[in-house]
Amino acid sequence: MYSTNELQQIVKELFANENFVDEPRQLYDPIAYTLALGGKRIRPLLLLAATDLFDSDIKEAYNYAIGIEVFHNFTLLHDDLMDKSPIRRGQPTVYRKWDENTAILSGDAMNILAWRYFIKKTHPNLHKILHTFEQTGREICEGQQYDMNFETRNDVTINEYMEMIRLKTAVLLAGALKIGALVAQADSNDVEYLYRFGISIGLAFQLRDDLLDAYGDTASFGKQTGTDIKDNKKTFLFLHALQKGNSAQRQRLTELFATTPDDPTDKINEVLAIYNNLDIKKDVEEKIALLHDEANANLDAVRRPEASKQVLRQIAHSLLDRDK
Amino acid sequence: MYSTNELQQIVKELFANENFVDEPRQLYDPIAYTLALGGKRIRPLLLLAATDLFDSDIKEAYNYAIGIEVFHNFTLLHDDLMDKSPIRRGQPTVYRKWDENTAILSGDAMNILAWRYFIKKTHPNLHKILHTFEQTGREICEGQQYDMNFETRNDVTINEYMEMIRLKTAVLLAGALKIGALVAQADSNDVEYLYRFGISIGLAFQLRDDLLDAYGDTASFGKQTGTDIKDNKKTFLFLHALQKGNSAQRQRLTELFATTPDDPTDKINEVLAIYNNLDIKKDVEEKIALLHDEANANLDAVRRPEASKQVLRQIAHSLLDRDK
Repeated sequence: MYSTNELQQIVKELFANENFVDEPRQLYDPIAYTLALGGKRIRPLLLLAATDLFDSDIKEAYNYAIGIEVFHNFTLLHDDLMDKSPIRRGQPTVYRKWDENTAILSGDAMNILAWRYFIKKTHPNLHKILHTFEQTGREICEGQQYDMNFETRNDVTINEYMEMIRLKTAVLLAGALKIGALVAQADSNDVEYLYRFGISIGLAFQLRDDLLDAYGDTASFGKQTGTDIKDNKKTFLFLHALQKGNSAQRQRLTELFATTPDDPTDKINEVLAIYNNLDIKKDVEEKIALLHDEANANLDAVRRPEASKQVLRQIAHSLLDRDK
Repeated sequence: MYSTNELQQIVKELFANENFVDEPRQLYDPIAYTLALGGKRIRPLLLLAATDLFDSDIKEAYNYAIGIEVFHNFTLLHDDLMDKSPIRRGQPTVYRKWDENTAILSGDAMNILAWRYFIKKTHPNLHKILHTFEQTGREICEGQQYDMNFETRNDVTINEYMEMIRLKTAVLLAGALKIGALVAQADSNDVEYLYRFGISIGLAFQLRDDLLDAYGDTASFGKQTGTDIKDNKKTFLFLHALQKGNSAQRQRLTELFATTPDDPTDKINEVLAIYNNLDIKKDVEEKIALLHDEANANLDAVRRPEASKQVLRQIAHSLLDRDK
């Protein structure tokens, strides 16, 4: 068994040793740039931790760990283009640093490149691993589509929002854990429990992200704060405030989320004042804690010694109590 | 052995029986729309014909045949967006019928969906099949990137152009043939000969496409003609004319390919006049015939009876003597 720190170090070295530059440079440079921006590498970390949980050789999981991070970064690259986000991890996004066509095509190549890592070697569970990866990838597109659909809808429910973030965010964390367990040839029940652990962690992770966008500190978060409010994004905070607020607050929120002022400072402050008045932050934190409990209950059910589960519990904890 | 007509009918039914519609509709409708536009279905046809060449059960190849056509249509969908092409097969392209973000995301899902068909079943050669598919897919992106690079370069050579169309167009025809042969578990030499057959056919096919864009009839070609000239695309015709023309013609061609008049009619006519003066059409047709001969020589080398090769010879012939 490896410690969380050891696994993080291994993931870091995996990417440091991997060369993503190739010809033509205009195609591969944006891929290498995106992957060099770093990030928390949560998905490969979860994948290796899941393999390690079953005392299996984590080297067998290295290619899938790289592949899933390449895929994740592909989705970020295209999402940033679709959302017209200028900054990612404190640096200009690909479509801003290069141009839109470069972002489209490099992303396409990156999507395919992820598969390259998944098919590098054979494995007794390869078919299940590839099936999980394919389904997860398509579900992420479905989640992004629902997210875009919500932009023009005024009747999004909290349930619909939770399903959207399940697809857009949670299935990839869950998929990483499932693939790691499949590499270890774990029992199918345990594979399923780990998947559910990942879904709950993923939902909570996204709610934490929604919170940080509203309440985080730009320097440590690495993104501008208040962008969800500025962009009229119907996050959990907004939908919950709509549900909880009185009719005046509801009306004002709806009005504010129909505006796009050049300077969004006043708008952001007014929305935050309503959130604060309604104790939205506390409610979201409670919801995150509830999902965290659900996640732990699923991890409890995995038939491995409690000591072996500590790494996954630590990773989950660090994801949900993060400030960036 | 099946006849070409029978294989075409089988491919047609494969797509007629396949349901591409799913939820969310905004994601999957553009996929179903793109695949319903039809087209010649050359790649699945070649794939099945290659399996059939070795007297193997073509049913084993159905999923790969669908997958390769889904992938091909994904590349068209994103290429149309990057090239801002309004019309494909006589119908509005996805980014025009819907919008740019829909085109990006549906294309991404379609790229992944292609893999779904490739991993539906296991196969003794699955690893080689997936490797071929992955490499082919990435090479197509590389070809598209070179194509985009050429837009801003004034020193593109004919050799560079041929390498670009090898990647952008030929490898997918060759890959389809190779995958069909791998499904049949053909001898590795025969697999390689079929791949080279496909490369030559693919290069010739693209030169025919360049010719048709300049000299085709809009109604039967299904695309506007003269668009390559209008868009200042450095096709084989242009590069060859630059090489063959006198200094006045070279200078005039270079000047014309730096303009983008609102009404391109005069520009197109003047470029065609230079092409005609230089007998470019005849030269390109000779080059196509040469590549066709190369293709046939590679097919000759495959250790199968000549009678079994007739279908592939017919398909190649129909591709290279087409008027659409």
